[in-house]
Amino acid sequence: MKTRLDEFIRYRSVMNERIAQIDHLGIKRFFNLDGNAYKNGALSGKTKELLGLVASMVLRCNDCIDYHVLQCVDAGWSNEELYEAFNVALVVGGSIVIPHLRHAVETLDLYREMIAGKTQ
Amino acid sequence: MKTRLDEFIRYRSVMNERIAQIDHLGIKRFFNLDGNAYKNGALSGKTKELLGLVASMVLRCNDCIDYHVLQCVDAGWSNEELYEAFNVALVVGGSIVIPHLRHAVETLDLYREMIAGKTQ
Amino acid sequence: MKTRLDEFIRYRSVMNERIAQIDHLGIKRFFNLDGNAYKNGALSGKTKELLGLVASMVLRCNDCIDYHVLQCVDAGWSNEELYEAFNVALVVGGSIVIPHLRHAVETLDLYREMIAGKTQ
Amino acid sequence: MKTRLDEFIRYRSVMNERIAQIDHLGIKRFFNLDGNAYKNGALSGKTKELLGLVASMVLRCNDCIDYHVLQCVDAGWSNEELYEAFNVALVVGGSIVIPHLRHAVETLDLYREMIAGKTQ
Amino acid sequence: MKTRLDEFIRYRSVMNERIAQIDHLGIKRFFNLDGNAYKNGALSGKTKELLGLVASMVLRCNDCIDYHVLQCVDAGWSNEELYEAFNVALVVGGSIVIPHLRHAVETLDLYREMIAGKTQ
Amino acid sequence: MKTRLDEFIRYRSVMNERIAQIDHLGIKRFFNLDGNAYKNGALSGKTKELLGLVASMVLRCNDCIDYHVLQCVDAGWSNEELYEAFNVALVVGGSIVIPHLRHAVETLDLYREMIAGKTQ
Repeated sequence: MKTRLDEFIRYRSVMNERIAQIDHLGIKRFFNLDGNAYKNGALSGKTKELLGLVASMVLRCNDCIDYHVLQCVDAGWSNEELYEAFNVALVVGGSIVIPHLRHAVETLDLYREMIAGKTQ
Repeated sequence: MKTRLDEFIRYRSVMNERIAQIDHLGIKRFFNLDGNAYKNGALSGKTKELLGLVASMVLRCNDCIDYHVLQCVDAGWSNEELYEAFNVALVVGGSIVIPHLRHAVETLDLYREMIAGKTQ
Repeated sequence: MKTRLDEFIRYRSVMNERIAQIDHLGIKRFFNLDGNAYKNGALSGKTKELLGLVASMVLRCNDCIDYHVLQCVDAGWSNEELYEAFNVALVVGGSIVIPHLRHAVETLDLYREMIAGKTQ
Repeated sequence: MKTRLDEFIRYRSVMNERIAQIDHLGIKRFFNLDGNAYKNGALSGKTKELLGLVASMVLRCNDCIDYHVLQCVDAGWSNEELYEAFNVALVVGGSIVIPHLRHAVETLDLYREMIAGKTQ
Repeated sequence: MKTRLDEFIRYRSVMNERIAQIDHLGIKRFFNLDGNAYKNGALSGKTKELLGLVASMVLRCNDCIDYHVLQCVDAGWSNEELYEAFNVALVVGGSIVIPHLRHAVETLDLYREMIAGKTQ
Repeated sequence: MKTRLDEFIRYRSVMNERIAQIDHLGIKRFFNLDGNAYKNGALSGKTKELLGLVASMVLRCNDCIDYHVLQCVDAGWSNEELYEAFNVALVVGGSIVIPHLRHAVETLDLYREMIAGKTQ
């Protein structure tokens, strides 16, 4: 059964391809810059994905949260570690973050299930 | 010579004492919760301070940036690592973060000087 | 017929139970603090729910608006009083609040109907 | 086939009628003020619609983006010009704007198709 | 001795006079709308000032906080009641609100002193 | 006599030089991207500066407002045209923008005086 996470992954991919067709150097460079920001450097990519996740939560962007939860899981962060990051976002950003905490936890569960389904 | 960082540290301390006198359980508990969020747990306090710094930068709060820059330096993050965190904040938050990047870099320089002055 | 309000109430409940299973003291305490903030004190709970509603509107969080509209109706605020609060949010927050005003008015109507249906 | 843009236009219209029934002078005046802000003056309405679009993107409000994309197309802005405006929003607002860039591009495509369908 | 509150009151007055000289109907009407939003209606002006204060705190605007703290004191809210409103803002908006809580408490103290000085 | 605008220009220049010394490719590229976003393209640089100004006002960043007001004046926008842009920002962003409107108007006046002083 298709979940909202499958739909997010599909939509994100379709629209990123559409945007890649736009002939605008600034937009292309921004996407490159965004991708490069999470590569290994003085800080590991793993650590920077966690920074991106907390930034997305306090700025309250569900699509950004979905993207960074997936990246964080792929980078090897455990649920216990992610809950800690969620808590920092909650304390910094306040109760207005709670709906996005619900979304983040649901995404985390959906993605763990998706991975478990694939590896069976 | 007194810098703006000395003044920030003084003002923050004076006002936190003033707020501590307020007889309101919710406010007291919030301050406790805030302090506890950065203690060692599934994530180290060091990592969580970096999360707090990036959250403060994308939310564009200079006083919060000052506080977390100091905590991050005390926790042992190097300038090169902090620049990486600044870059994540810049890419996530956009050019509107630039004035706060200036502030963060200046605070970092002022605090390194303050520490160097004390240890001489 | 199920409305989007029924679905919100269901989802909120399911996810709050899921979050309650997370073994993280900070998250648990934050939820307590949030609940306690709207209890009677120097200000009545009724007044504080209205504060929470306006805060949710200017921060433009539809789920938070849904929650506080329901709480405000339960606390006894009339539609005329709620429209006044909506207006303060609109003037403070600007036209960017208009989509959330639409959402708030629709939620208010849906909840009045839900209550009327139950009491028949 | 109904698209999400058809649904947005319908919902916006229904709720604006509902809000117009609210007997609150402040809310009525705010809607007037909002409408008047985009009329020809020292700046053309066309230019001001573009300002409204970029403001909506950096404030990350999809409904506001939908409204202003439609207005900008009706005012005669080309896709190449709109991509330029999108790029300013992206640089000012950062990667957190990307999901709203996807939304804006999709709305632009849907509206061009809607217009093409009507003029056939 | 001049405090920062005296300076805020002076600056606000000077700049509002300057803005009143701008020959733009939209700006003039917005200022009227803003003033009218806090007059007695279905909700008392006193209640609406408190709504304005909490909205200003969660949106983290110190000048707006200063203005509404003064209005709230003039409207008759006690410090204990204002602390309750501060707490709602803190819980909704999170620790990023703390610097603005410091500012609000300081403004409240400065204004109580100003009033006490005048009435002696 | 030095104004706050002179101080802003000086501080911005000093800190940009300091940031230019940071050996981080991402930060360097972001500054390039930011500069390029306002060059002539499908939209004129003049139009894009106005977009940048309104984005800065609704995001409520005084340093960004200062920068874009100067750029807009240099690009040839008249005060009457800038007031129109200010009005769009005010309507979109609400009364929370008013302190930044004061700041923008003051900056505009200070810069017109600075230019008049230089050309005498």
